[in-house]
Amino acid sequence: MERDLVGRLAGAECLVLGAGGFIGANLCPALARAGAVVHGFGRAPAHPEALPPMPWTDAEFQDRAALAEALGGKDVVFHLLGGSIPDLAERDPAEDLRGNAAASVELLELCRAAGVKRMVFISSGGTVYGMPRRLPIPEDHPTDPISAYGIHKLLVEKHLGLQARRNGLQAVVLRAANPYGPYQNPHRGQGVIAALMARRLSGQPVEIWGDGRVVRDFLHVDDMVDAMLRAAVYAGPHRVMNLGSGIGRSILEVVAAVDQVLGLEGADLVFRPGRAVDVPVNVLDVSLIRRELGWTPRTGWLEGLRGTADWLRQSGVLGAGRQDERARALRGCA
Amino acid sequence: MERDLVGRLAGAECLVLGAGGFIGANLCPALARAGAVVHGFGRAPAHPEALPPMPWTDAEFQDRAALAEALGGKDVVFHLLGGSIPDLAERDPAEDLRGNAAASVELLELCRAAGVKRMVFISSGGTVYGMPRRLPIPEDHPTDPISAYGIHKLLVEKHLGLQARRNGLQAVVLRAANPYGPYQNPHRGQGVIAALMARRLSGQPVEIWGDGRVVRDFLHVDDMVDAMLRAAVYAGPHRVMNLGSGIGRSILEVVAAVDQVLGLEGADLVFRPGRAVDVPVNVLDVSLIRRELGWTPRTGWLEGLRGTADWLRQSGVLGAGRQDERARALRGCA
Repeated sequence: MERDLVGRLAGAECLVLGAGGFIGANLCPALARAGAVVHGFGRAPAHPEALPPMPWTDAEFQDRAALAEALGGKDVVFHLLGGSIPDLAERDPAEDLRGNAAASVELLELCRAAGVKRMVFISSGGTVYGMPRRLPIPEDHPTDPISAYGIHKLLVEKHLGLQARRNGLQAVVLRAANPYGPYQNPHRGQGVIAALMARRLSGQPVEIWGDGRVVRDFLHVDDMVDAMLRAAVYAGPHRVMNLGSGIGRSILEVVAAVDQVLGLEGADLVFRPGRAVDVPVNVLDVSLIRRELGWTPRTGWLEGLRGTADWLRQSGVLGAGRQDERARALRGCA
Repeated sequence: MERDLVGRLAGAECLVLGAGGFIGANLCPALARAGAVVHGFGRAPAHPEALPPMPWTDAEFQDRAALAEALGGKDVVFHLLGGSIPDLAERDPAEDLRGNAAASVELLELCRAAGVKRMVFISSGGTVYGMPRRLPIPEDHPTDPISAYGIHKLLVEKHLGLQARRNGLQAVVLRAANPYGPYQNPHRGQGVIAALMARRLSGQPVEIWGDGRVVRDFLHVDDMVDAMLRAAVYAGPHRVMNLGSGIGRSILEVVAAVDQVLGLEGADLVFRPGRAVDVPVNVLDVSLIRRELGWTPRTGWLEGLRGTADWLRQSGVLGAGRQDERARALRGCA
């Protein structure tokens, strides 16, 4: 992280919504290192050991009163919530609208009432564009998501734009690629790399949706957090920026790289039918964010995978995952 | 209306959601004339005399059971509901999401379950684009609404696209300009022309938001209905089409044309501050719909205004409006 950021965030009152998750576990310590005053909001963290000493509001996102109280006196809000698990939005999109999406819209009104100056919102670069008409995908590409998850991220983006226009909220939307790195839970249906590593490390076969040639843009969480801190002090005119590596890798390439890092070979691949919500390829054009935030991804691909593998081995989540699976099987819903 | 449409819609089972409103009062008789079997859904019609004999489900849009029953056996659904009054979406956008928008998303699921083949959805060409970057506005223009109403129309458009892609629903989104004509209620905060005529005919001053130079695209409801019928039998690849006159007219021009038609002069203009939700200009590029639907607007501007004025004078709504206003004043909320 650049030195100037440390100065510009020093003393800033920051609220992190969804601080207990994967991104939060990486963002909160980085904010604290930059001298910001960090406050967490959301369900209890899975890895409290990752977090700096900080006040915490243990509440659901839909709890307006808790949210309003936590927003008081805040300069910057990092919004990592809202449609957190893609599957939920697909299974019942109307319910996702009534819950997560409506809560995000209410959050904006609460921010206005609390005088919050700035919001950094993590949107989904992998889903808001839909089928790519050109590659890499720039920010002005049409937005026709092929998943309810992507539609609802787009909805929140548009409401943020409205607040920025109408009430002067300094909103930055980061359309993020697939993040990976330490503290990503391999057992929650998100995070291809964590899930893949966990299965390889525990000797399980690797499930692949489609033929393995689906291409995605993967970004190490350290680089993602670096961009988020820069976005929090950005004063330029762009409200929507892609955040990714700009490099496309197929799932089969990822499997090979993971095996290289783990020192394994001969992965047992189980091919499942492709899913309707998956576009065949998604690679983000990141020239705008490089230019506007002076940001560049710094974590090498194999280096990032190694760090992720080290964390998975040391963290105990592999064993916990097996216990989770056993518990689900016993309840008859595995 | 072209003769070939009559044949292609003959016997088609059509459900009109929001049939009791302005568009419904014009669409339902046209469908009946084309030989379609029409079923109405929504609140009781303001002008039952406009409608052909037809079954009616008197229910709220959020009533899933009523909706599911009405959808049974239908070939085409005309969706005229969902965020019907722009002001509601602005006042409480989260509530509008939970109510209207979520109900539209549920409607799509109910359509799939009922085996509905086709939907014609009236979106808002005046709000989904936001500030125009070029004029007239083509369908591939960026969509950055400056109103919650526009955002929620866009949300429904995106979910329609998802259903079309995933379940083969033949969905046509018509991004409509400002419709005007008989059966538009001049007292509901929508319909500039009806409101303006009503105030001129009753000798009241004319309220103008902004300086009167705001430019809009006005389309006679007969031309709108013609396009909707064509959309109901369209088999081409385009799912989103602008529907307007392609001609921009300022509010001051509209006032002058209305006075010409009414034989009045010297309108008493009261200028109010411009509203944050209004773009300064909106004119739709209608070359796509002309080509794809073989449609063209046929109603002349002054001819359309004359017909609207004739209806307003004969319908009794002017007196009803004055009674409404008096009743509101008595209740202390005028």
